[in-house]
Amino acid sequence: MVLGLGTGSTAAFVVAKLGELLKTGELTNIIGVPTSKRTEEQARSLNIPLSILDDHPHIDLAIDGADEVDPLLNLVKGRGGALLREKMVEAASDKFVVVADETKLVDGLGGSKLAMPVEVVQFCWKYNLVRLQELFKDEGVEAKLRVGEDGKPYVTDNFNYIVDLYFENPIKDGYAAGKEISGLEGVVEHGLFLDMATAVIIAGKTGVEVKSK
Amino acid sequence: MVLGLGTGSTAAFVVAKLGELLKTGELTNIIGVPTSKRTEEQARSLNIPLSILDDHPHIDLAIDGADEVDPLLNLVKGRGGALLREKMVEAASDKFVVVADETKLVDGLGGSKLAMPVEVVQFCWKYNLVRLQELFKDEGVEAKLRVGEDGKPYVTDNFNYIVDLYFENPIKDGYAAGKEISGLEGVVEHGLFLDMATAVIIAGKTGVEVKSK
Repeated sequence: MVLGLGTGSTAAFVVAKLGELLKTGELTNIIGVPTSKRTEEQARSLNIPLSILDDHPHIDLAIDGADEVDPLLNLVKGRGGALLREKMVEAASDKFVVVADETKLVDGLGGSKLAMPVEVVQFCWKYNLVRLQELFKDEGVEAKLRVGEDGKPYVTDNFNYIVDLYFENPIKDGYAAGKEISGLEGVVEHGLFLDMATAVIIAGKTGVEVKSK
Repeated sequence: MVLGLGTGSTAAFVVAKLGELLKTGELTNIIGVPTSKRTEEQARSLNIPLSILDDHPHIDLAIDGADEVDPLLNLVKGRGGALLREKMVEAASDKFVVVADETKLVDGLGGSKLAMPVEVVQFCWKYNLVRLQELFKDEGVEAKLRVGEDGKPYVTDNFNYIVDLYFENPIKDGYAAGKEISGLEGVVEHGLFLDMATAVIIAGKTGVEVKSK
């Protein structure tokens, strides 16, 4: 089975468990396709056999966390900075299962007041930041270049920058928003994952709930 | 006047002439916005005042060459490798004038049998090369990773690779093709410049012709 390995705190638990199950022999015949350098390193340290999309373009199942989940199972992802590789791997997966706790549930995407990331080329990032800000003036948005702990711009695994969008009101039409963002020259990818999740496993105070399409 | 400065052999003549006119004082009050590091270096060496989209998001006029020009003034550009910055700058221009010789005229885009470039992230470029090949199987296409003179993959100013598409038959629907290419995760930009040129100046054996919209 070819398994897409997500990135972030939730996905790290999945990868750790996978390593354990492979070690004890409870699982065999697994090939992992990591969605970031970070996940690749973790998986490698656990001796999980790894591959890439070049060699395994079809993935059976991807498991990953999410930053927001709306009632239609559309997602915001990429606060961990790995949105592009996550989207490439998860779009290539037959099934894409999201694991999240109930704090991630929103009525509308962008509704958490936390970042919705957009990966942009470094060239004229400020120009694109302003254009993103203008694109969502109806929703009310603050666009900020993501900076690392060293105060320098955060650079993705693909040598790009991230502009984080903080919405005052949820995005009205996620599909239109996705198209408009992608239409800006210099935008590489955005954190709206639409029509991609096949199921979401939600951990709440009263137990675990599974929503699926 | 804010002037977008193209990239490539034709554009280099324009930049050289611009430098000359500024030097003699025949032109004044020009700010150039270059579309590549190469053009930036040339313009700097000629003392042309320069800016970037961050500071000058609106450009009055851009002048550039093209690799193909179809009857509707749609273009293939980017054989010089600067397609992303060219598209960013030229899309921000009120007027975009293309200078080309008559060998660049085609009945349909992709019809020259020469490269139509697609800029892709380095991550899993082979996966995207195969997907591009599949996208155009009706037209018949050979997709090749661009390599430099040193035999290594050519890296763009934005740290990406280029997959060159060589079509057997012209692209049937450039607009649909552009959308489909852009829809592939990991594609950063493509060389189809649709509805962008306001005029094309064509140098032929019998003189110069101007086509405009």
